Amino acid sequence: MVVQLERPVEVYTTNLVSDTMMYTYTFDSLPLQRGGLFGPVTLAYETWGTLNAEGDNAILITHALTGSSHAHDVERPDDPKVAWWNPLIGPGRPFDTSRYFVICSNILGGCAGSTGPASIDPHTGRPYAMDFPVITIRDMVHAQRRLVEHLGVRKLAMVAGGSIGGQQALEWAVTYPELVGKVVVMAATAALTAQAVAFSEVERQTIMADPRWQNGNYAPGEGPTTGLAIARMLAMITYQSEETMEMRFGRNLPDPCRSDGVSSPSHYPDLGTRFDVENYLYYQGASLVRRFDANSYLYISRAMDLYDVSEGYPSLEAALRRLTSKTLFVGIRSDFLFPAAHVRWLAERVRAVGGDAQYIELDSPHGHDAFLKEWDQMTAALIDFNRQP
Amino acid sequence: MVVQLERPVEVYTTNLVSDTMMYTYTFDSLPLQRGGLFGPVTLAYETWGTLNAEGDNAILITHALTGSSHAHDVERPDDPKVAWWNPLIGPGRPFDTSRYFVICSNILGGCAGSTGPASIDPHTGRPYAMDFPVITIRDMVHAQRRLVEHLGVRKLAMVAGGSIGGQQALEWAVTYPELVGKVVVMAATAALTAQAVAFSEVERQTIMADPRWQNGNYAPGEGPTTGLAIARMLAMITYQSEETMEMRFGRNLPDPCRSDGVSSPSHYPDLGTRFDVENYLYYQGASLVRRFDANSYLYISRAMDLYDVSEGYPSLEAALRRLTSKTLFVGIRSDFLFPAAHVRWLAERVRAVGGDAQYIELDSPHGHDAFLKEWDQMTAALIDFNRQP
Repeated sequence: MVVQLERPVEVYTTNLVSDTMMYTYTFDSLPLQRGGLFGPVTLAYETWGTLNAEGDNAILITHALTGSSHAHDVERPDDPKVAWWNPLIGPGRPFDTSRYFVICSNILGGCAGSTGPASIDPHTGRPYAMDFPVITIRDMVHAQRRLVEHLGVRKLAMVAGGSIGGQQALEWAVTYPELVGKVVVMAATAALTAQAVAFSEVERQTIMADPRWQNGNYAPGEGPTTGLAIARMLAMITYQSEETMEMRFGRNLPDPCRSDGVSSPSHYPDLGTRFDVENYLYYQGASLVRRFDANSYLYISRAMDLYDVSEGYPSLEAALRRLTSKTLFVGIRSDFLFPAAHVRWLAERVRAVGGDAQYIELDSPHGHDAFLKEWDQMTAALIDFNRQP
Repeated sequence: MVVQLERPVEVYTTNLVSDTMMYTYTFDSLPLQRGGLFGPVTLAYETWGTLNAEGDNAILITHALTGSSHAHDVERPDDPKVAWWNPLIGPGRPFDTSRYFVICSNILGGCAGSTGPASIDPHTGRPYAMDFPVITIRDMVHAQRRLVEHLGVRKLAMVAGGSIGGQQALEWAVTYPELVGKVVVMAATAALTAQAVAFSEVERQTIMADPRWQNGNYAPGEGPTTGLAIARMLAMITYQSEETMEMRFGRNLPDPCRSDGVSSPSHYPDLGTRFDVENYLYYQGASLVRRFDANSYLYISRAMDLYDVSEGYPSLEAALRRLTSKTLFVGIRSDFLFPAAHVRWLAERVRAVGGDAQYIELDSPHGHDAFLKEWDQMTAALIDFNRQP
């Protein structure tokens, strides 16, 4: 196993990855899907477990919009809040670190250690900001390939991810079929719906309309906090479902203990009253602002919108015919951002062109976010998938 | 029939109500549901048809968030774009102006001739702006009652409306059961879901976060155009459905003829590309800004959120037990803002306490907006409802 600790990592925020052994790998340049060479590129990553001599027991975990390389926390392996797929990773767990070398890297465009819009452009000495190129899911995957090669991986036993991470897993299967044994595509589809693109664009507009955004040229810590908080409020609605919000909040007023000190992004007083659901969204908005870069949000959410697995191929079928990996598609009953019917449809299309695709559905009220919540159902599905040859 | 033309009407914009014979009625004060007396109150209204000597052939039409009194246009009665329920109103139509005296007034809090936040507070000589009181659907209905009495109406043969207009219709039936013969509650429920409140609050935050909002104290024509346009973008998503947006836009790029001159609210260049759905939403956002007051948007959308038919009664059942009108509840299959299941549930609750409630569902992919689109289905349902004793 080759792991090169290049330098202490400066991440956008430190509260997310405290006590974390994070590494970086930097390479000179990456050809981008939309044209041009971009570089240098640094990817921040973490690994758990040990790579075998054959270099074929690696699992790559791919993260979602505001995620990071911190999918697992060895110090607190049972706390789902300190690492985003924590309960699924570890000895004896679906991503079994006693047998596999599990890798998770912050995506290209991110702000948790990898090169993104907040990184310093070595040619100018200033952050890239909106001079960062438009990147795609395919670009993220190409960069990840460079990383896994650097780590000595000859073949990935599995690539797995949810949401934008699911798009990456699918893209791995299509772009590098010979390098991937199994693939788990969770809560992701061949391409976003018009509705999902629309929500995504409203989120970006709230960021770009904030005068503190300054065409992206804000100083660190002085970004469009209001716009990003509102974007997050909207995103949180789309990550949940009518059903789960009704169960959780209904028309309740907030517990005074919970609303104390929580302010709306605009800071204007409540109009008549404050509902618990509003208070929750204010809290979530303020919380993201502390840990995420607004320009990264713009670029990664745009990559999500632009993703179309068939891009560059004569047809969707031609793209899917490339898949040779054993693939598990996981839909979520109540997901309206990546509707389960579309995930199922994609699995059927893969089978229709001769691919080995299975589909299961998480029976969850939690909407898109179920891929970060339904530990028991995900564990069962993944262990079953692992057992298959 | 008593109709008093008080003065030429100044509306927030004129493009909506050109060639319209709009009247106003002003009364001194209105006790508000949340306390206090507010006044003077002016309601702008239009009427079609003639009130009979008994004063009992009137139909009150109640409008939605950004609507106006211009439900019908006698000059262009066949164009659904020039008046919001145009095809349903006229001789021989469901709201039959050869038999009924049809009234539609701009709601309290509106900006199309009635008293709202943009109106001049006579005590200060300046617009009310955010000194406008928090108003409720019940307040709107109380104001409408004053208007219909002024017009000589002794009993309303029918009250009908969709969305916030449906909330008003329901509130009429509960507050003034003795004054209403039949009621049509379309695409409205007993109270909004947590998800709908959440969307609504995101919309308000985008308005209030716009620096041009200035705590509501903007000069006419200098308001938060960016914030209001983004709010409208989001609202338009919630008025439609995943299904209809997919059919209409999919992942198409815009026709160059349609995108020419259309800019995003932030005016920042497209990130990689522009999807047709984005272009459409930009257009809709810019379009609302030209005809609607941002503070009105805040107050009316908040009234929608706050609405709970049971408020002030010991229980929902106690409120619904007051209904003596014959009631038609109309749900829309694809509506996710006011889900059909909730409309149906409300009709069942009314029946459960002995009320005369029917439920029908518009089989439409168009989401909430179907109540402004599905003319044939609505006509059929309303004519059938009219025929019943």
